[in-house]
Amino acid sequence: MHSVSLGIIGGGTVGSGVFNALHRNGNLLASRIGVRINLVKVAVKAFDEPRPYPIPRKFLTTDWLSVVNDPAVQLVVELVGGTTIAHTMVLTALKLGKPVITANKALLSAHGEELFAIARKFHTNLYYEASVAGGIPIIKALREGLVGNRITHLYGIVNGTCNYILTRMKREGAEFDAVLKDAQRLGYAEAEASLDVNGYDSMHKIGILASLAHGFWVNPKQIHVEGIRSVTQADIRFAEQLGYTIKLLGIIKKVEGRGSRVEGKKLSGSRIQVSVCPTLVPNAHLLASVNDVFNAVFVRGDVVGDTLFYGRGAGKDATASAVLSDVADAALDLKFGTQRRVPPFVPHERDGAVLPIGEVVSRYYVRLSVIDRPGVLAKISAILGAAKIGISSVIQPEGHEGESVPLILMIHDAPNVALARALKRISKLPVVKAKPVMIRVETFA
Amino acid sequence: MHSVSLGIIGGGTVGSGVFNALHRNGNLLASRIGVRINLVKVAVKAFDEPRPYPIPRKFLTTDWLSVVNDPAVQLVVELVGGTTIAHTMVLTALKLGKPVITANKALLSAHGEELFAIARKFHTNLYYEASVAGGIPIIKALREGLVGNRITHLYGIVNGTCNYILTRMKREGAEFDAVLKDAQRLGYAEAEASLDVNGYDSMHKIGILASLAHGFWVNPKQIHVEGIRSVTQADIRFAEQLGYTIKLLGIIKKVEGRGSRVEGKKLSGSRIQVSVCPTLVPNAHLLASVNDVFNAVFVRGDVVGDTLFYGRGAGKDATASAVLSDVADAALDLKFGTQRRVPPFVPHERDGAVLPIGEVVSRYYVRLSVIDRPGVLAKISAILGAAKIGISSVIQPEGHEGESVPLILMIHDAPNVALARALKRISKLPVVKAKPVMIRVETFA
Repeated sequence: MHSVSLGIIGGGTVGSGVFNALHRNGNLLASRIGVRINLVKVAVKAFDEPRPYPIPRKFLTTDWLSVVNDPAVQLVVELVGGTTIAHTMVLTALKLGKPVITANKALLSAHGEELFAIARKFHTNLYYEASVAGGIPIIKALREGLVGNRITHLYGIVNGTCNYILTRMKREGAEFDAVLKDAQRLGYAEAEASLDVNGYDSMHKIGILASLAHGFWVNPKQIHVEGIRSVTQADIRFAEQLGYTIKLLGIIKKVEGRGSRVEGKKLSGSRIQVSVCPTLVPNAHLLASVNDVFNAVFVRGDVVGDTLFYGRGAGKDATASAVLSDVADAALDLKFGTQRRVPPFVPHERDGAVLPIGEVVSRYYVRLSVIDRPGVLAKISAILGAAKIGISSVIQPEGHEGESVPLILMIHDAPNVALARALKRISKLPVVKAKPVMIRVETFA
Repeated sequence: MHSVSLGIIGGGTVGSGVFNALHRNGNLLASRIGVRINLVKVAVKAFDEPRPYPIPRKFLTTDWLSVVNDPAVQLVVELVGGTTIAHTMVLTALKLGKPVITANKALLSAHGEELFAIARKFHTNLYYEASVAGGIPIIKALREGLVGNRITHLYGIVNGTCNYILTRMKREGAEFDAVLKDAQRLGYAEAEASLDVNGYDSMHKIGILASLAHGFWVNPKQIHVEGIRSVTQADIRFAEQLGYTIKLLGIIKKVEGRGSRVEGKKLSGSRIQVSVCPTLVPNAHLLASVNDVFNAVFVRGDVVGDTLFYGRGAGKDATASAVLSDVADAALDLKFGTQRRVPPFVPHERDGAVLPIGEVVSRYYVRLSVIDRPGVLAKISAILGAAKIGISSVIQPEGHEGESVPLILMIHDAPNVALARALKRISKLPVVKAKPVMIRVETFA
């Protein structure tokens, strides 16, 4: 049987997960793909760092360069994370013509185009199934399974920590800060949780999916990002009354219709909107039922229609499953000498562009704190009406005490900038007592 | 750019769907995979047969053999269906060394092993993503995306017609016959619906998934099959009261534990249970929310954990999406000369066997019609107790009139044969007025 020798950089949570999965299922993998995977070395930060699965001492080294440079190592797996040393590691391996497997979305998001160019130049490949949505084979689904489709809509719950927090907030009626603290205690959130709860981890992943779906590399700086820190129990409850669940959703949509401009220029290529933000999802939609740490990606193709891919988005084992899928592909590519069979990224849409958030048209949920006095709604709706923004429903819940009461408005399709401006004017009304809350609503129509 | 020439046999619903998708997205596909697909010919039953998308006359022929034999045709797509002429068509193409793409689950189920052997012998390949769950790339997911996993559990809603009927029965409170008739009128069910509603179409698909997941070719005759004709409104309502939805579920499970025998022999290989039957699915499980004509496959891997794949299971467009995915793979394989990169089937579990249904242990829902008289439950539970079958809950709904009343029993894990025997004894009690109903319950634990 053909065999391929593997070196791993990173022996922490995911690295030891890959080691363990390979140890457990290596024979099965070999019998399925007809290639035996020989693990040669694992580079670690320290021999005795804590890891969920033990790795025998004989595999370990603290010198990552010795793994990459080892002539016996044909395939390098980078599981270090971050954009500094990992960048050097991946570049070094690619420049030796060695294919690299990575789970590093931050690296891809920031340096994807450079890495793809280097891989191309050195006739090798970069595999990154594990970088988005953990164990869900979504990269393969987009790039191969749905290859015959124009992707018109993609919605993703791609951060397990945020989904876990929002799920518990809804279930338990607790506020964000309390649930975050408990999630940190239980290990469902990092001690430094900003990358997750501020939406940046989702941004990295959604940027990768948008790029693959639309054929041009999406600059993460062009992605509109809102995290979940501002989601309150009040909004979760009102959403529930309206039949919705709040999820942190990555939203990628092909923009239809004329007149869309980007930075003043009218472009011939396709325009897409790309956002990560808390979103009201109708309870009848499958995405509303994706709970706890699970991820899901909903993809609408012009041929296939609606599809959904669900699974664990992170963790040592789910990520290891995705890495092994890449190991199998890379091993087959090495066996058959087809390292560039499916290139890491094909820029087929040269004029593609991301629409600025201001131009994005969507439904919104708006919560205002107002003085309970006749004529308030008239004033507010006059401002919205002047901005040509339609209200589809109003809830003024009974039984609220205190100086101000909540007023919930469901807004018809409106450009983001128009609604934001109108809310700014509304917030200046003397009867409005707090900064208006504005949350996106998706109907998946 | 490299190009590959394609011949299609079958120009009906799916065939014209593939033609249309290729016409619409052919350039996109070419730019993504770097191979241009040239459609050479489409063999049809008759030039003027009705088809949802028109195919220009210049592509059409009524002579399928001229398509297969055409030296210009490098890749053959079989979309005729059935196991007779389609069998000849696929064999003929494979024997010419031409890779074949098929959506034909009946053919694969009945003749898979023979076709795989012929493909191997003639150094070519057989691709069948479209044969199971339409547009959902589940074959690719199992074979590539989850290749590093032992698949411990797989549950599939893989027949759109049955799911549509069950969804409407639950929503509308109507009985099977009425909904079937209306589904036929609306085109959601074939005039001859037996293959679907009796569970045989699901059996073909679940057999293919079981074979791929477990590495031995599952003989469809060993699959326990129950259709949905026997599902009544009464059972749907009682299930609802208990928090369940009835779905026609394909169930594939690795059987754990000692002592499992197959046909009297104790085997060393893995044993699996494979069934297609109406099943009570807890409402909190995603599969309970898969409605209308949609399909979904829930896969649990020992590394990845729980995953779910959802989409349209049939129809001209969804099936075309899967065919195009195979076209892309086959075209790349032709370009790189790697026709056997991912063989159609790898028999890696030589001693695998399917457990007879009698030995399958599961929870059950039982509905009895009994005379409303003291002591009835005691008699029934005595028979179950003697058979070591435990009852987890009992519902005797109020307000039923007439001679007999329903009695619902939820049964703890019990071997199928033990429960069936006990119910036979129970059915002979004078107080029991109709044949007991026994429906499987899954908890997905």
